[in-house]
Amino acid sequence: MQGKVVNSITDALRLAGIRDSMTLSFHHHLRNGDYVLNLVMSAVRELGLKDITINASAIFDCHLPLVELIKDGTVSGLECNYLGALVGKSISSGILKKPVIFRTHGGRPADLERGSAHIDIAFIAAPTADSQGNISGKYGPSACGSLGYAFADARYADKVVAVTDNLVPYPLADFSIAETEVDYVVIQDRIGDPGGIVSGTTRITRDPIGLLMADMAAEAIKASGLLRDGFSFQTGAGGASLAAAFALEKIMLKECIQGSFASGGITSQLVNMHKRGCFETLLDVQCFDLGAVESIRVNPQHKEISAGHYASPEAASAVVDSLDAVILGATEVDLSFNVNVHTNSQGLIMGGSGGHSDTAAGAKLAIIIAPLMRARMPLIVDRVHTVSTPGDTIDMVVTQYGIAVNPRRADLFDLLRQSRLNIVTIEELKETAEKICGKPKALNDEDGRIVAEVHYRDGSIIDTIRHRNHPHTDN
Amino acid sequence: MQGKVVNSITDALRLAGIRDSMTLSFHHHLRNGDYVLNLVMSAVRELGLKDITINASAIFDCHLPLVELIKDGTVSGLECNYLGALVGKSISSGILKKPVIFRTHGGRPADLERGSAHIDIAFIAAPTADSQGNISGKYGPSACGSLGYAFADARYADKVVAVTDNLVPYPLADFSIAETEVDYVVIQDRIGDPGGIVSGTTRITRDPIGLLMADMAAEAIKASGLLRDGFSFQTGAGGASLAAAFALEKIMLKECIQGSFASGGITSQLVNMHKRGCFETLLDVQCFDLGAVESIRVNPQHKEISAGHYASPEAASAVVDSLDAVILGATEVDLSFNVNVHTNSQGLIMGGSGGHSDTAAGAKLAIIIAPLMRARMPLIVDRVHTVSTPGDTIDMVVTQYGIAVNPRRADLFDLLRQSRLNIVTIEELKETAEKICGKPKALNDEDGRIVAEVHYRDGSIIDTIRHRNHPHTDN
Repeated sequence: MQGKVVNSITDALRLAGIRDSMTLSFHHHLRNGDYVLNLVMSAVRELGLKDITINASAIFDCHLPLVELIKDGTVSGLECNYLGALVGKSISSGILKKPVIFRTHGGRPADLERGSAHIDIAFIAAPTADSQGNISGKYGPSACGSLGYAFADARYADKVVAVTDNLVPYPLADFSIAETEVDYVVIQDRIGDPGGIVSGTTRITRDPIGLLMADMAAEAIKASGLLRDGFSFQTGAGGASLAAAFALEKIMLKECIQGSFASGGITSQLVNMHKRGCFETLLDVQCFDLGAVESIRVNPQHKEISAGHYASPEAASAVVDSLDAVILGATEVDLSFNVNVHTNSQGLIMGGSGGHSDTAAGAKLAIIIAPLMRARMPLIVDRVHTVSTPGDTIDMVVTQYGIAVNPRRADLFDLLRQSRLNIVTIEELKETAEKICGKPKALNDEDGRIVAEVHYRDGSIIDTIRHRNHPHTDN
Repeated sequence: MQGKVVNSITDALRLAGIRDSMTLSFHHHLRNGDYVLNLVMSAVRELGLKDITINASAIFDCHLPLVELIKDGTVSGLECNYLGALVGKSISSGILKKPVIFRTHGGRPADLERGSAHIDIAFIAAPTADSQGNISGKYGPSACGSLGYAFADARYADKVVAVTDNLVPYPLADFSIAETEVDYVVIQDRIGDPGGIVSGTTRITRDPIGLLMADMAAEAIKASGLLRDGFSFQTGAGGASLAAAFALEKIMLKECIQGSFASGGITSQLVNMHKRGCFETLLDVQCFDLGAVESIRVNPQHKEISAGHYASPEAASAVVDSLDAVILGATEVDLSFNVNVHTNSQGLIMGGSGGHSDTAAGAKLAIIIAPLMRARMPLIVDRVHTVSTPGDTIDMVVTQYGIAVNPRRADLFDLLRQSRLNIVTIEELKETAEKICGKPKALNDEDGRIVAEVHYRDGSIIDTIRHRNHPHTDN
C-alpha cells in the first residue's frame, strides 16, 4: 500500500485513535444508497466501543442497522440535519440515551466553526480519491457529484478518513477536498448502491393538485416583482417543487428573463433551466439526480459549494443571503406561520430542517407549498407540533385552496392582491381544512421524555421533541 | 453600492477596525506589477497609524515606497517569504524597528494554522470579484491565474478585504476564494500593471554555461532512476531552470516517459510539457507567465492549489511530500550543502526562501543548479552567510565544473558514478572556484544588530541576518 492507504476501516479507526464516547461524522451525498456509515459502525461495534456519537448531515432509511447499535449501547448520541422515518420512528420511541441534536445544513458547519460541535473522526464517502486523500464526488462508479456537506467535516475534524471504491493515481487534479485535510484512505469494493445514491431522473408530479399549486407558486413569484433579470431561486427535488420550477421556467422563457443562479440541491430540471438560459449559474451543495451529476462534472458554470458557503450564518456571507425566492415543503404550518418538517401528524420523527430554515431566513421570498389536507389531516394547525422554521421567516403559504401571506409582509400582500391569485388569510385556510377534515385531536405528549432538540441555525434551541410510540406499537 | 462593496480602502480599513500595531497581510501574485500594497499602506499612513506590521508572501521592488513608511514609523514590522533587493538593501541597513521574520511558502500558512502568526486584516488583490467577495485570479485586466498564497490569509485573518478592478455580477461561479471568508470589497481603477504582473513569456537561457548545467541536471535526474512513468517535477522561472525543464522534456519525449505532475510556480515551458504528455497534471500555486494564466483558465488538469496544499508541514500532506525532483538556485552553498538564497555576497538581503526549503525537504531529489562563480565570487564557501535551506535536505549541486553529491546520499553517488556525468566532491568544487577567483574575504558583521530572522518551515529559527550597509553607502 502507498501514501495514506490503510488496509481496513478497522485499521483506520485504530490509527485515528478511536475510543469510547468519541464523535464520528458522516455526510449524506450517497443518500439512500450509502454503505459507508453502516460499514464503519459495524467495525466500531466489532471493536467493542461504547457511547459513540454519530454526527451525520442526514440519516436515511438505509441506515436502519443503526437502531441495533443504539440498543446495544454502541451508539448513545445522534446529531443530524435530517432523520428518515424508519430510524426516526425508533428514536421517537425513546431508544437513544441522549436527545438527538437536530441542526440545519447551515447550522452544522456553523456549530463546528463556533466549537459548539466537535468531530473526533470524520468518515468521507469518496467516489474518487488518490492515495494522498485528494477527493472528488464527480467520478467513479459511486459518483454523487457535489460533496458540499463534507467540507466542514474535513476542515474541523481531528482526524479524517476517506473511504473510496475508486482509487486513482496521484494527483487527482479535480479534487474537491484536498489531501491537506485527509489522514487515511480506505479502499472498499463498493461505497454505495448506485440505485440509491441518486435517482435516475427526478420527475415532475402528475398529481393535479400539485400542478395547480406549482402554477400558483410561480405566479406568486411573478406577482412579487422579484422575477426579473438577475433572479435567483431554490427549490427541492419533490414532485411539486419540480413542477413549480417548471412552471417558473415557462414564465421566464416567455418573458425572456435571465436569472443569476439556482442553488441548493440540484436536479435535472434546474440543469435544463440553466441550459435554456434561465439561470447563469448553478451553486450545488448536493446532486439529486444523474443529470445533475453529469452537469457538475463537465460544466464550469455548475459549481460545487460547501455547506458553509451555501448556508452558514457564521460565514461572512452565504449563498442563501443572496437568494430571491425559495419554495419549501411542510408537514404542518400554524397560525403564526411556523413550519414543522420534523414530525408527522402522530408526532413521530420523519424528517428535519435540512436547508429549510436557512433558506427561509436568507431568501427575500420564502414560499411554503403544501396540500391543505393529507390523509384527512389539515395542514394548518393552531400550533405546530414541532417548530422547525420560525414563522417570521416565512412569507407565504400556497395551498390548492388559496395563498396566505404572512401579515408582516403587507407589501407582498398588496402586490399579490393585484394579481389573479386567490389570496386568503391563514385562518381562512385553517377553517376550510377543518370543514373538510374536522378538527384533529391534539397530540398529548407533553409529559414524555425529550428525545430530540431542534437547534436553529444560530445555535439556539427552538423546540424539543418528546418520546412518543408509533400508534401501532403503543402499550 | 451593493453587497459588501465599500467606497474606498480607507472605508474598508475603518470598518475592519484598523488600529496601531495591527498586522496587515498581502500576497504577491501581482508580483512586480502590484499596486495594492502601496495603495493600502498609503491609506494607512494618511490615517496616521503607527507600528503596523506587514505580513506579505513576498515584497518586490515595486514596493519601494515601503521604505518611507518604515522610516516615518507607520510600519515597524515585516514578515515575508521573499524580499527583493531594492527594499532588502534598506532593511539590511537597519531601518526597521523589529527584525524581519522570513518564512517559507509552506511555513507561512503553517504558522497561521499554529497560531504563531496572526493577521488582523488581510488585503487580497482580486483580479475578479463579485459584490459578495467571491474571488478569482483567472479573469480580468489584471489576471494573474492562481491565487494560491492568498488562501491562508482569507482563512485565518480576522477581517478580509478584496481589492478588485473587475467587479462582475453575483455569483462569480469559478471562484477560488469564497464569499464566506471575505468581509469587504473595494473597487479600484487598476490593481496592478499588467506589464509587471506576469512576463509575456519566460525564456530559456541562451547562456552556454546555463545550458550546459541544464543538460547536466536533466542527465542527473535520469541517472537517479526517478525519471520513469509517474515522475513528478518542480523548477523555477529562471533561464537555467527553464533550460533544465526543456532538457528534461527532450529526454521524456524521446523515452516516452509519462510523468504525473509538475508543481509550484508554473511557466509556459511546463504548460507545453503538459500538452506534450510529459505531465498529466499541473498543480499551480502561482503563474509566472501569460501562457500559464491562459492554461489555468481553460484546462481542468491545470489546477490551482493553496500554499498550504503546496507545501505546509502542518497539513496532513502537501504536494511537496509527493515530489520526485526539484531544481533550485543558490547564491551560496557551503561544504555542508547548506544553501543561502537570502543574502548576496556582500551580506545584503536580496531574496528569501519562497518554496526553496519546502521543496528541498519534500522532494526525493533536491538539486541545486548554479554557476561556480558569479562576478568573481565563488559559489561554494566554507559556511554560507545565511542558512536558508539546511544541507541535509539538499542532494546534489550542479555546476559547470561538475556535480557534487551530498555524502549522506551514497546511493545517489553510486548511481551517478555509473553515468557519463562528471562527479566531484564539494571540496573539489570549492578549490576549483578559489583557483579561479581567489578566496573571498570573509564578511565581518557578527556584531551588527539582527535585522532579520530566518524561520524554517517547522517554525524554528535557523539563522539570523545582521545589520550591514551597502558598500557604496557605508559610513
